[in-house]
Amino acid sequence: MIVVGERINSTRKSIREAIASRNGALILKEAANQLGAGADYIDVNCAMTAGDEVQDIDWVISILQSEIKDISICIDSPNYLAIDRALNTFKGVGKVLINSITGEESRINRIVPLAMKHNAKLIALTIDDKGMPDSAVRRFEIARYIYEYLRKTGFKPENLYFDALIRPISTEPDQGREFLKSLPLIKGLPGASTICGLSNISFGLPNRSLINSTFLVMAIHAGLDSSILDPTDKNVRSVLKASMTILGQDEYCAGYIKAYREGMLV
Amino acid sequence: MIVVGERINSTRKSIREAIASRNGALILKEAANQLGAGADYIDVNCAMTAGDEVQDIDWVISILQSEIKDISICIDSPNYLAIDRALNTFKGVGKVLINSITGEESRINRIVPLAMKHNAKLIALTIDDKGMPDSAVRRFEIARYIYEYLRKTGFKPENLYFDALIRPISTEPDQGREFLKSLPLIKGLPGASTICGLSNISFGLPNRSLINSTFLVMAIHAGLDSSILDPTDKNVRSVLKASMTILGQDEYCAGYIKAYREGMLV
Repeated sequence: MIVVGERINSTRKSIREAIASRNGALILKEAANQLGAGADYIDVNCAMTAGDEVQDIDWVISILQSEIKDISICIDSPNYLAIDRALNTFKGVGKVLINSITGEESRINRIVPLAMKHNAKLIALTIDDKGMPDSAVRRFEIARYIYEYLRKTGFKPENLYFDALIRPISTEPDQGREFLKSLPLIKGLPGASTICGLSNISFGLPNRSLINSTFLVMAIHAGLDSSILDPTDKNVRSVLKASMTILGQDEYCAGYIKAYREGMLV
Repeated sequence: MIVVGERINSTRKSIREAIASRNGALILKEAANQLGAGADYIDVNCAMTAGDEVQDIDWVISILQSEIKDISICIDSPNYLAIDRALNTFKGVGKVLINSITGEESRINRIVPLAMKHNAKLIALTIDDKGMPDSAVRRFEIARYIYEYLRKTGFKPENLYFDALIRPISTEPDQGREFLKSLPLIKGLPGASTICGLSNISFGLPNRSLINSTFLVMAIHAGLDSSILDPTDKNVRSVLKASMTILGQDEYCAGYIKAYREGMLV
């Protein structure tokens, strides 16, 4: 299970302020906390700052790679120019994930060449110009379209992560199930992996951490390969460790027992 | 999801003592706590008392039905005579579940007629005279054998719950996965339901409640219909509520929000 730490996101007020005031210490602390809690990638989103996104993402990535050896980043932006700058700024030896393309050709055609040039992995949202899909099958159909389109460009399926778009169950009670059903369908595309932005599921409900962590367990069981989430959330971190142990992906339960001894579990 | 409350079990010292001293108040308190926490059935196990199991189970069931209106019970015994007595003692209008038969013919032939006479539901463990199964397929094969055998007796599949036997992942790391894989196979038998004794999964590991609750979520996602568990365990109770909401089985998330407001969730 690959964990993308979501906390350096400009939808959060503290992050917007840190970026505006060039408070590198706060950014580095958020990154270190997430890496300590098990993040494999650090998501960087500067799309909601009051300033210039291109300048802002350049600054955040510069700060991160200057202080954290071998960091892997997830460039989270709808803006082609910000993605381009972030890819050029990042000189680390770690891996890069671009978040995201969609089924819209204009977006694919601008971003895929960048990803290939920089050997970056790519998140593809299962959305197209007809909008967001309601059903598992529709999610799969969009994924298959993107998959076939990218194959023609030479983009390797091994670098492709499909995000089948979690929608809040508080307003759309069947959408949790439809998302889960889409995972094995999408994983039928050879080489393709799956990812999700976890916390959307619980929007509008109390005790979101419980819904997020429970949904994560179901999604892992359904075949989810990676997730954008808050690894410092103890419920989420705990079920991640427990899930790996239950599925036999933690030899001698060693990772689970270590996490328990270190006080990392609920 | 049908919940069988496991706490009135003579493997627990406090229960053995309560039965030995005919402490009805403690037994009733355990039942009431479990019913308040969401149990549909109350499991009664007197197999490990120092006294006579037949007398003991008669006493426990008499106490329960005398004080708790409409209680449903699960008669948990390997002993034909204790099951027979329990079925005769129970006069309630609630439902009865017998735990259990196996694939061994001698056990089927003695217990199935009792179940049919009393219109009781039946738990069938997927074990036969060759022992406990290792794989999902072997679990299914034993379930199918029992299913076909019972059909010939006229026993209704709707009253049949298969327990595919959870084994501890601490010593057998692939057994969690094999159990989970067996659930959709067994549910392919028309009318049949699935059940499990949840806490076996975490034997030998720290923080058992986390493993139990995480495994329960995966099992529900894989198609589990009911479980013998401790509903007073807040983690377990919380993920049960969250799972029903996620799977769209909780209209307007009302059950989840009510449980949250009543402080029932972690």
